[in-house]
Amino acid sequence: MNPNKVKEYNAYRERMNEKLMAAPNNKILKRIYSLDTLTYQEGALSEKTKEMLGLVASMVLKCDDCIYYHLQQCFQLGVTTDEVMEIFGVANLVGGTIVIPHTRRAMEFWEALKTNADDLNTPIK
Amino acid sequence: MNPNKVKEYNAYRERMNEKLMAAPNNKILKRIYSLDTLTYQEGALSEKTKEMLGLVASMVLKCDDCIYYHLQQCFQLGVTTDEVMEIFGVANLVGGTIVIPHTRRAMEFWEALKTNADDLNTPIK
Amino acid sequence: MNPNKVKEYNAYRERMNEKLMAAPNNKILKRIYSLDTLTYQEGALSEKTKEMLGLVASMVLKCDDCIYYHLQQCFQLGVTTDEVMEIFGVANLVGGTIVIPHTRRAMEFWEALKTNADDLNTPIK
Amino acid sequence: MNPNKVKEYNAYRERMNEKLMAAPNNKILKRIYSLDTLTYQEGALSEKTKEMLGLVASMVLKCDDCIYYHLQQCFQLGVTTDEVMEIFGVANLVGGTIVIPHTRRAMEFWEALKTNADDLNTPIK
Amino acid sequence: MNPNKVKEYNAYRERMNEKLMAAPNNKILKRIYSLDTLTYQEGALSEKTKEMLGLVASMVLKCDDCIYYHLQQCFQLGVTTDEVMEIFGVANLVGGTIVIPHTRRAMEFWEALKTNADDLNTPIK
Amino acid sequence: MNPNKVKEYNAYRERMNEKLMAAPNNKILKRIYSLDTLTYQEGALSEKTKEMLGLVASMVLKCDDCIYYHLQQCFQLGVTTDEVMEIFGVANLVGGTIVIPHTRRAMEFWEALKTNADDLNTPIK
Repeated sequence: MNPNKVKEYNAYRERMNEKLMAAPNNKILKRIYSLDTLTYQEGALSEKTKEMLGLVASMVLKCDDCIYYHLQQCFQLGVTTDEVMEIFGVANLVGGTIVIPHTRRAMEFWEALKTNADDLNTPIK
Repeated sequence: MNPNKVKEYNAYRERMNEKLMAAPNNKILKRIYSLDTLTYQEGALSEKTKEMLGLVASMVLKCDDCIYYHLQQCFQLGVTTDEVMEIFGVANLVGGTIVIPHTRRAMEFWEALKTNADDLNTPIK
Repeated sequence: MNPNKVKEYNAYRERMNEKLMAAPNNKILKRIYSLDTLTYQEGALSEKTKEMLGLVASMVLKCDDCIYYHLQQCFQLGVTTDEVMEIFGVANLVGGTIVIPHTRRAMEFWEALKTNADDLNTPIK
Repeated sequence: MNPNKVKEYNAYRERMNEKLMAAPNNKILKRIYSLDTLTYQEGALSEKTKEMLGLVASMVLKCDDCIYYHLQQCFQLGVTTDEVMEIFGVANLVGGTIVIPHTRRAMEFWEALKTNADDLNTPIK
Repeated sequence: MNPNKVKEYNAYRERMNEKLMAAPNNKILKRIYSLDTLTYQEGALSEKTKEMLGLVASMVLKCDDCIYYHLQQCFQLGVTTDEVMEIFGVANLVGGTIVIPHTRRAMEFWEALKTNADDLNTPIK
Repeated sequence: MNPNKVKEYNAYRERMNEKLMAAPNNKILKRIYSLDTLTYQEGALSEKTKEMLGLVASMVLKCDDCIYYHLQQCFQLGVTTDEVMEIFGVANLVGGTIVIPHTRRAMEFWEALKTNADDLNTPIK
């Protein structure tokens, strides 16, 4: 296990997000980032449910970094390991066994979150 | 709008599922069908939450028939239009504008469900 | 060939877009639609180049309705058949032979556009 | 069941393939078509094995028309229903339950092939 | 070339599979793992053919770890380099040039298998 | 930032491409490589436009190495940062937020290209 997995993930994401937000002619990307924030806000569905939706969507689309992001949000919103395991189940059923390698890495990240809660991303995405 | 959209969808699905279940040498498919039933059962997450997970996964994977199936399950479990619209939002954000045509058809199916509740599939999947 | 392919496509798209725009709790979808308009506007790249980018992206993602939409936009912006054929080439090379069936339908739609220019969608998307 | 499913599929494919082969500036598409023929020829692997590879690839990529094409080739090369069912099993396991709707349509096509052998495509692809 | 590529791959896969198998509430994942074993067993199709099907499906779905797994199984079942190259051909034709980077890594893994046969995974998956 | 990102990428790609070109029974792969060269040559569309098409297709298909390749080609053909940012916009809109992590890595590669122009691949692909 890599004990710094969460910290390294967040550091890279934040550094490159800053680059993109500072780049010229980035109007569309900025809107997408802002829409992203808006989409997961409390509404008819709770924030927690929406983050779980984001997690399962990221898993079937096989995007590790997206999975890590939503796992972290789920962790901060109090999703339990039992719940995470059922999301893994739905994702592997719907998306098939090609989701398994992503599930292995997701499990590693989830364990890192539980043991390294200090590395969590700051509230500002 | 096609008023028979729900009925036609269910009739074809049921007829072909029966063919597959009656086919020779179908052990793996039978297990997958049975696992599918098991996966969406009440657990740490409610049936309703799981069907919403199935819906968003089907949308980002752009599978119309899967979308119809989970919309129908959501409808029967009392998911509201306000909630469905937020699932559509997450799916279109995560999956991009290529999800829009599937969202149009999903909307048509959702409206058909609300006006033709008699065409709902029977409890036996 | 279906001579009404363009007309039928536009009629369904417009009808269901209206449904989605009139639905409750559709804030995220509305923003995505508005962002979609913004993204294809003239900028560092011309509208024509952007529509060609939208077309090739839709082809490799195998979304027929998205392909039809961008073909129509390309047609209205003066993209030639010679240019369309090269976009088909890139899409089939990058996306593989699973793009061929979508290319067949794209060709049918492109021919319908050339023979039924009256069925084009109105400027308001 | 649609008894003309095979005939209709082949008629449309052949008509549009002819359009694409007669179109201007189609050098890349022509090469892809010719490469497609070459790829499935007998080599270290038999034609039959290669068509089964083409079938499973088409299923996990969820391309109905590609599935129909390879099912037809498999049928002509003597693949049995027992073998087809195992390919369906691998595809649904690896690709997940989103492959199920394509498996239903594949089953319908396979049955149509068995009952309407006269509608088979001609040797010239 | 990384001479430890096979060993590292197997070590990580086994360690994380154990974590997943030891996790709470993992009924669905356990069933999927057990179904995975069942699916590739000798039947109407040979184990070798099924592993080749698994390989081509993994390639067009662009899952490196799945590709490594099936390459390893193919190696142990006596699939030759000539046969592997034809599977690479089908995968790159059907899936397009986006499969090329995965083919480069697959080639590296295949060569590592041939030179480091001692690092092969143990029979227990 | 990794200052050697471009150099490392090119070195690995070239080494493994040589392996594939030297492998036995690689007729199909060789043809695909040669078709790849042909497809991006000047025609009805300019080389620059075609590389931009290749870039957006690679982004929505989430293939990092393909993105790096086309970014490099775009850089050598004089595509500006303003233009690249609009391609990123189209890709993230059409492909959704799962394209964001690839956009972060693309941005890093683009910056590396601008600061390490000596590491560019040689004209022979």
